[in-house]
Amino acid sequence: MPESTNLRLRLPLLCIILEVILIILFGTLVEYNHDTDAKLWNKGINQNATRHDYENEFYYRYPSFQDVHVMIFVGFGFLMTFLQRYGFSSVGFNFLIAAFSLQWATLMQGFVHGLHHGKIHVGVTSMINADFCTGSVLISFGAVLGKTSPVQLLVMAIFEVTLFAVNEFILLSVLGANDAGGSMTIHTFGAYFGLMVTRVLYRPNLDKSKHRNSSVYHSDLFAMIGTIYLWMFWPSFNSAITNYGDPQHRTAMNTYYSLASCTLATFAFSALVSPEGKLDMVHIQNAALAGGVAVGTAGEMMLTAFGSMIVGFLAGTISVLGYKYLTPILESKLKIQDTCGIHNLHGMPGVLGAVVGAITSAMASKEVYGNGLHRVFADAKDDKWDPQSRGGFQAVSLAVTLAMALLGGLVTGFILKLPIYGSPPDTHCFEDGLYWEVPGEEEGHNELKEVASPSETEKLSS
Amino acid sequence: MPESTNLRLRLPLLCIILEVILIILFGTLVEYNHDTDAKLWNKGINQNATRHDYENEFYYRYPSFQDVHVMIFVGFGFLMTFLQRYGFSSVGFNFLIAAFSLQWATLMQGFVHGLHHGKIHVGVTSMINADFCTGSVLISFGAVLGKTSPVQLLVMAIFEVTLFAVNEFILLSVLGANDAGGSMTIHTFGAYFGLMVTRVLYRPNLDKSKHRNSSVYHSDLFAMIGTIYLWMFWPSFNSAITNYGDPQHRTAMNTYYSLASCTLATFAFSALVSPEGKLDMVHIQNAALAGGVAVGTAGEMMLTAFGSMIVGFLAGTISVLGYKYLTPILESKLKIQDTCGIHNLHGMPGVLGAVVGAITSAMASKEVYGNGLHRVFADAKDDKWDPQSRGGFQAVSLAVTLAMALLGGLVTGFILKLPIYGSPPDTHCFEDGLYWEVPGEEEGHNELKEVASPSETEKLSS
Amino acid sequence: MPESTNLRLRLPLLCIILEVILIILFGTLVEYNHDTDAKLWNKGINQNATRHDYENEFYYRYPSFQDVHVMIFVGFGFLMTFLQRYGFSSVGFNFLIAAFSLQWATLMQGFVHGLHHGKIHVGVTSMINADFCTGSVLISFGAVLGKTSPVQLLVMAIFEVTLFAVNEFILLSVLGANDAGGSMTIHTFGAYFGLMVTRVLYRPNLDKSKHRNSSVYHSDLFAMIGTIYLWMFWPSFNSAITNYGDPQHRTAMNTYYSLASCTLATFAFSALVSPEGKLDMVHIQNAALAGGVAVGTAGEMMLTAFGSMIVGFLAGTISVLGYKYLTPILESKLKIQDTCGIHNLHGMPGVLGAVVGAITSAMASKEVYGNGLHRVFADAKDDKWDPQSRGGFQAVSLAVTLAMALLGGLVTGFILKLPIYGSPPDTHCFEDGLYWEVPGEEEGHNELKEVASPSETEKLSS
Repeated sequence: MPESTNLRLRLPLLCIILEVILIILFGTLVEYNHDTDAKLWNKGINQNATRHDYENEFYYRYPSFQDVHVMIFVGFGFLMTFLQRYGFSSVGFNFLIAAFSLQWATLMQGFVHGLHHGKIHVGVTSMINADFCTGSVLISFGAVLGKTSPVQLLVMAIFEVTLFAVNEFILLSVLGANDAGGSMTIHTFGAYFGLMVTRVLYRPNLDKSKHRNSSVYHSDLFAMIGTIYLWMFWPSFNSAITNYGDPQHRTAMNTYYSLASCTLATFAFSALVSPEGKLDMVHIQNAALAGGVAVGTAGEMMLTAFGSMIVGFLAGTISVLGYKYLTPILESKLKIQDTCGIHNLHGMPGVLGAVVGAITSAMASKEVYGNGLHRVFADAKDDKWDPQSRGGFQAVSLAVTLAMALLGGLVTGFILKLPIYGSPPDTHCFEDGLYWEVPGEEEGHNELKEVASPSETEKLSS
Repeated sequence: MPESTNLRLRLPLLCIILEVILIILFGTLVEYNHDTDAKLWNKGINQNATRHDYENEFYYRYPSFQDVHVMIFVGFGFLMTFLQRYGFSSVGFNFLIAAFSLQWATLMQGFVHGLHHGKIHVGVTSMINADFCTGSVLISFGAVLGKTSPVQLLVMAIFEVTLFAVNEFILLSVLGANDAGGSMTIHTFGAYFGLMVTRVLYRPNLDKSKHRNSSVYHSDLFAMIGTIYLWMFWPSFNSAITNYGDPQHRTAMNTYYSLASCTLATFAFSALVSPEGKLDMVHIQNAALAGGVAVGTAGEMMLTAFGSMIVGFLAGTISVLGYKYLTPILESKLKIQDTCGIHNLHGMPGVLGAVVGAITSAMASKEVYGNGLHRVFADAKDDKWDPQSRGGFQAVSLAVTLAMALLGGLVTGFILKLPIYGSPPDTHCFEDGLYWEVPGEEEGHNELKEVASPSETEKLSS
Repeated sequence: MPESTNLRLRLPLLCIILEVILIILFGTLVEYNHDTDAKLWNKGINQNATRHDYENEFYYRYPSFQDVHVMIFVGFGFLMTFLQRYGFSSVGFNFLIAAFSLQWATLMQGFVHGLHHGKIHVGVTSMINADFCTGSVLISFGAVLGKTSPVQLLVMAIFEVTLFAVNEFILLSVLGANDAGGSMTIHTFGAYFGLMVTRVLYRPNLDKSKHRNSSVYHSDLFAMIGTIYLWMFWPSFNSAITNYGDPQHRTAMNTYYSLASCTLATFAFSALVSPEGKLDMVHIQNAALAGGVAVGTAGEMMLTAFGSMIVGFLAGTISVLGYKYLTPILESKLKIQDTCGIHNLHGMPGVLGAVVGAITSAMASKEVYGNGLHRVFADAKDDKWDPQSRGGFQAVSLAVTLAMALLGGLVTGFILKLPIYGSPPDTHCFEDGLYWEVPGEEEGHNELKEVASPSETEKLSS
């Protein structure tokens, strides 16, 4: 194993320094919010009995939060275990960078979204938002999967989380955009950021690790655990931070129908693009999820089941076609080595979602939404509210997101190129053994065989 | 690979046509219900402040819905991965037919359960009901697992969902039956429908694929993921659409105790029926779940923990005995090739659940239920309500369900027998390679192939 | 296979006798509580409309219950599948003893915590408490994993559940301790009980099974399923039975931050203690969870995110160091063979959690908690309430727990030493084949071996 990838000092040092900084910043800046603070929540509880415990935001948001949490840690983590010799890293580094990012995101989002008397207030909503931001980092991780050290990934997360918070602030607070499920803020941003990073980190000799850059039978089944959890809980993801009541309910349902339709499109086109008419696990694992991405903006609107299903069908279709035809071109022509094909799962469907969101916003009306209009479009309380210009702002939001992601990815990519992070050599990409004690490897022969042999021998002789 | 199983045109065509039909029908027929529509939910929100967001059905039902959703996609999907070479198809086809069925079920159930001014109203309750109907199709899938093409499965789903909706309508609306957890509508129906289909599709030469019709070590562990999720979330399944408050709470708890008791019975009888006293994974994976099936009807009633545990114990016992003694007879004498043994997990326990439900209904009284009586038995509001006749209607419901399932399965079986669906030949049943790109096969030196070959060779020569 | 381990009579007999006893006791002693009983819940529903269905404890507790349930059955079950040839037993015996323990715990906890007119009242809160008690048994299972028969494990569960209930009663009811997440009652108790049992069952010749007492690549991935679920749902675990409103909300959030911080510490120290700077799956699978254990007592208090992160960081650190340096010493010097290293995951972090809880209690004040004080510290309603003495009682609670666990484990260990339970011989520890029908073994040729060899050959020669 090359010395240059030994992480004994680099990784502990980085982790400990980051966590100490986080702890100090949390100690000075973070406070319980109204619904988590014993004093604030119970203020006036004796005088005024009209507030009840079930009104605590915990009961509205926590089940959704847990579903989102599962998507972040199991969904993303296992989805990436499809590689034959990179399961430990997929789940493990996903775990590490998510655990870091959610803490860092709490601070960054707290900063830009407004301090309360100099303090960041936290509760279940900030936890969901932190998980969302983390999702964006994990999307980018998919592009560089197998080609980066955990130190690099943590450095990437530092920058990406920061930029995510800034972009989110511009979209939601400056441009007043709607993006509850993050078609733009999470998926488009995470995808194009990651694609730019992997472009800068281009490895002309990645072929040397080609034999490991594919799945085996069991690793594909592990990956399906990730896929199915993402698929099932996407309705919770898109609805997790919408307004209470009808918007949350509607968003979950729209997402449910979009995903169902997307799944049929995915199976259809996966078989169609194969000369033998065979289904490809890569498509099923990924493209079937594009329907969730593509209703991330419009899901809370009156998109209807009908609209959701059309969007889902389109998303599944472009995603499969992207895997089949676009990914090879991106690699050969644009030198973008996108391990998980995030462009097909998050990039294009994210842009589609942004466009659908802009159109659906532009079509909003008091007639359709009634008194519920301002619960979806916050600025509709204002009499001068104009859906067309709202649609325009949504489109601008997409442009801003793309610019921020590409620029941010470019800068971050060059920072990650410094030869100090223990990045794997071209010959040892997609290989757990570089950063993990892989069972039995120490003795120089395969554990699986050794393991089987003695027990076998014994059995036969008994 | 035989040309006859090439799905390149058949599968895409069917998927696309079905989805287009679904989209058109959703566009013309489906509307948001009161709790998902922005206008309806927020109507009068200014005049009348007594309705609160937490009263939206979303907060009562969505956590249960997500648990049901996990059972449908992870539970059923992974439970069937026990076959050594059929994991992709188990999870994948489960995914495909579930995604189709839930859309189709929304329409069929909407039709028969009553349109609102010509429209089907959808919300979280319709989503749960659609998932329930899908569960029934997946039960039938268990009987024909490994012996059908995805095209056949989709065709089966079209018919089964339709009949399910009709049967459900007869039971719940015509006969006024109770069946919140679906002992009859879901389990009995799905099981006997599937058993009849597999009977009609009988393959005398299935022995040619015998060496693949069994598990390997890791596939049994994947299957346990399915088992455990089904087991854990069954309380949510049975309680998902009961009335709010005590019925939902009680149903979850009754199911919890039934399953716990069932598990002890399963381990006991699994060891007892083995000459070496060894536990059999097939029993643990399946029979331990029978307790959930068997309280699907009576779970919402005042069955008590005591009653639930007796029912669970019985269910586990008959299920293990069924796997050990009945399944081989069904295959040899009745020519019913039941891959997953759904007769033991869903068939007999479903019938048991129907009987238990009839008895428990017949024993209901104002004395035990107090003012809660009509919240379990809707027609108890009527003064002439008579528990004995209620019990009778429950028994009739079982008979109707069996008749509908067997007849429906018979007809559907013959439709599925047409030689146009790309069904696998007898020599290639239980084999993913027929319909899936199995990793690396193209290059001819795939790890999996190497891996598979010797074991294959050896088996053939042994 | 040695005759002495044949369970054909022993296991069925024990399971059936236990379940019959349980059913009889449930029949005579257990009743629905106010929120699950049709009559009680709907009492006066006509006269008084102020009680609403959403006030049923089901809606406050059931989502948390399901998360806890997943931790017990998937979390613990899969975490222990890391052993190469013990996956069936890990998930399967976990399943069996959990299903038994939760029933037995309902009775034992019901007895000691107070009968209502001679009856035990059950509802979702008793279900959570029963699952908690079960967790304690599963922790002890981790110490003896691979070295005990299922009969032994059930016998252990009988005693441990009973003692757990007594200890819990002393802590919560006599000493008035706070321990919502069970740092003491669950983790410290389960760990030291299990360590003492494994000490008594010491096997000097366990080396004979050494080659099976380790992981393989895929078994480590299965174990990560357990780890990640435990990690994600620990916030629900610690908050499941706190008071409604701010305490539940705050506990979940404190646990979330503690775990995130713990994860960074775990990765840091795992790399640091490895000469090659490589991460060790054992640490990641286990130590990353110590942060949840360590805020089990103080989580509901005003610990702040800052405090939680410090505690989590410490917990991860001592846990990794424990695995690396202490476990080998415990085995060689104290003859404690701790298969899963529960001392590092539950023992030390549990004690840390108890200490943190005592300190945080002692620092509680009306100033910080306002009117919420008595919602965390029940006896704070009393004017004479003194935080320092409260802290003292917390410390006494830890001492009582340690004493009960060690003494109970000692006695139980000797009971389990009787040669009547079909315990595995030293040569066949960590081996599923002893108690399970393992696929393919009948034909005398191990699938696993065939599969591994050729791919290995190619790798070596390439």
